[in-house]
Amino acid sequence: MNIYDISKKTGVSIATVSRVINGSASVSEKTRAKVLAAIEESGYTPNVFARGLGLNTMKTIGIMCADSSDPYLARAVYYIEQDLRKNNYDSLLLCTGYDHDVKVKCMDQLLSKRVDAVILVGSNYVEFNDEMNDYIRNAAATVPVMLVNGVLNAPNIYSTLCDDRAAIYEVTTSFINNGRKKLVYLYNSRSYSGMKKLGGFTDALKDAGIPIKKDRIVFIDSHNVSVQGAKKIVSDLAKKGVKFDGIIAADDIISVGVLKYAKESGLSIPDDLFVAGYNNFDISECCEPELTSVDNKLEVLCRHCVSTLMSVFAEDKSVPKRTVFSAEIVERATTDFKIK
Amino acid sequence: MNIYDISKKTGVSIATVSRVINGSASVSEKTRAKVLAAIEESGYTPNVFARGLGLNTMKTIGIMCADSSDPYLARAVYYIEQDLRKNNYDSLLLCTGYDHDVKVKCMDQLLSKRVDAVILVGSNYVEFNDEMNDYIRNAAATVPVMLVNGVLNAPNIYSTLCDDRAAIYEVTTSFINNGRKKLVYLYNSRSYSGMKKLGGFTDALKDAGIPIKKDRIVFIDSHNVSVQGAKKIVSDLAKKGVKFDGIIAADDIISVGVLKYAKESGLSIPDDLFVAGYNNFDISECCEPELTSVDNKLEVLCRHCVSTLMSVFAEDKSVPKRTVFSAEIVERATTDFKIK
Repeated sequence: MNIYDISKKTGVSIATVSRVINGSASVSEKTRAKVLAAIEESGYTPNVFARGLGLNTMKTIGIMCADSSDPYLARAVYYIEQDLRKNNYDSLLLCTGYDHDVKVKCMDQLLSKRVDAVILVGSNYVEFNDEMNDYIRNAAATVPVMLVNGVLNAPNIYSTLCDDRAAIYEVTTSFINNGRKKLVYLYNSRSYSGMKKLGGFTDALKDAGIPIKKDRIVFIDSHNVSVQGAKKIVSDLAKKGVKFDGIIAADDIISVGVLKYAKESGLSIPDDLFVAGYNNFDISECCEPELTSVDNKLEVLCRHCVSTLMSVFAEDKSVPKRTVFSAEIVERATTDFKIK
Repeated sequence: MNIYDISKKTGVSIATVSRVINGSASVSEKTRAKVLAAIEESGYTPNVFARGLGLNTMKTIGIMCADSSDPYLARAVYYIEQDLRKNNYDSLLLCTGYDHDVKVKCMDQLLSKRVDAVILVGSNYVEFNDEMNDYIRNAAATVPVMLVNGVLNAPNIYSTLCDDRAAIYEVTTSFINNGRKKLVYLYNSRSYSGMKKLGGFTDALKDAGIPIKKDRIVFIDSHNVSVQGAKKIVSDLAKKGVKFDGIIAADDIISVGVLKYAKESGLSIPDDLFVAGYNNFDISECCEPELTSVDNKLEVLCRHCVSTLMSVFAEDKSVPKRTVFSAEIVERATTDFKIK
């Protein structure tokens, strides 16, 4: 919809439409009302008109993240906004939550605002049911779509991610090499990254010839992802008779709950129990003993995502479609790796 | 700058300028180049043209916060974005850092994007040197300015804040009433809210007849605001011969450093030392023993800020200029308040 469409629709000359939308006084009230009604009826936001003005870019990038109060996502948004601004782009932020319908609506909203690209932060956008990813592929038909910690193979979609599978595989193998074979894995997300992490755990068991038992792999739903929630889940596990000498969790906050359980039960860490977490944020240093955790190189990922986007804008011929960085295991007092 | 200005500047008729900016083919290349150069030279972003189109609102609110990876600010941005979207407004996020010049530039940038209002999140925008607040007052001449945890008395500026002074006064008084008189206060911000908190500490000492000693009030600069940084500062304080039986900190992360120092020094908490923090985020539950902290009602503040803004937009006659909420002290294992 542009000034020509409004002219056609109203039967008012382009010059007059131009006068109306520029607020000129030399237009009759009746004509003015008709033109404004047509603009309103068009249902578009004003930016569409700016786009219609023939200027190619709004210099605005849409950022979608599930929940900007999640420490992982909050940091990601921060790094991305900083780097976009250095490149003279503004950030339009939408916190979509985890509901698929809301994500689809938010994407529509961003596209109607004529953003220059969309960045999807976090691994919860790409679904295993591939039909549910249509809204991402459709968006990529209009603007570049950048995924931070997600992968979707389609034109105009670019992924930057951390090798979460390898990181959990390495942690699990270190547990096993140091004599811990009664392992439990606690996870809270079935997203792309969540399933990769789980795969790293089960592959490490397989490669070490340790049978994979269902009752040792526990999913924690979102309202139990807290210190107290995780503590209770480990306590229930022990009550059911599950024995463990090592617990690996997909998020630091869950591991802290494990430490609280250990303290209450009189377990000595790391002697009786090895514990490792994931993300390596503040809390891994706040708890007692301090937590062995995986640094997933979030800042590197985010900066790379923005620089890739700038290469896409520059029509660089050698833009990587997918870039994978390695995580780093930061050992603290909850493990004692004599052999790595 | 609008279509008329471009016409005047270039000597090209309005109809022709309109054709150029609508991408019509029936304009000579020379004229087209001249018009586009004039638009470019005007230095304005396309949105300015959208505004020039006579539509009153971009339905976009500018949000400035120093650092969206700070957990306090991240949560605030999340709550605000959610509530704005419920009211059909988009959020343009700028992470400004703490440098005054950058804040001023960011404000200019938001205004040039023709946002409908600006929300300044966190207490680090209003400076004690009042001249430095001109950029906020100037912005308020154009759009409503909402402050979350800051106060500036000027037309079209609205504040929502937590009574940080009263909260620290109450915590300090509880320490004193329970026999702790060798108190230390650790703080990391000289912002409006930071100085209010400090005032709460010193007023409580004064009212209890306890002399205020400079070496017991310690400022921690930003690169030492970490578990290890705070631990070292307390350790240095003890080495200098300062005796303490209670430490209150302006941020939870500092208090966790105090707990680490206590553990290393063999101090028993709360018997030998009372400790309290501020913000009541995850880490206050992660540390050992768990931390007594102040819940500053951030979600309530943010939701109230957005609802106030909506009242301003609705030209409601009874919009509060300043709204103050009370904090809540959440006692955990680092204090033992027999008398409150």
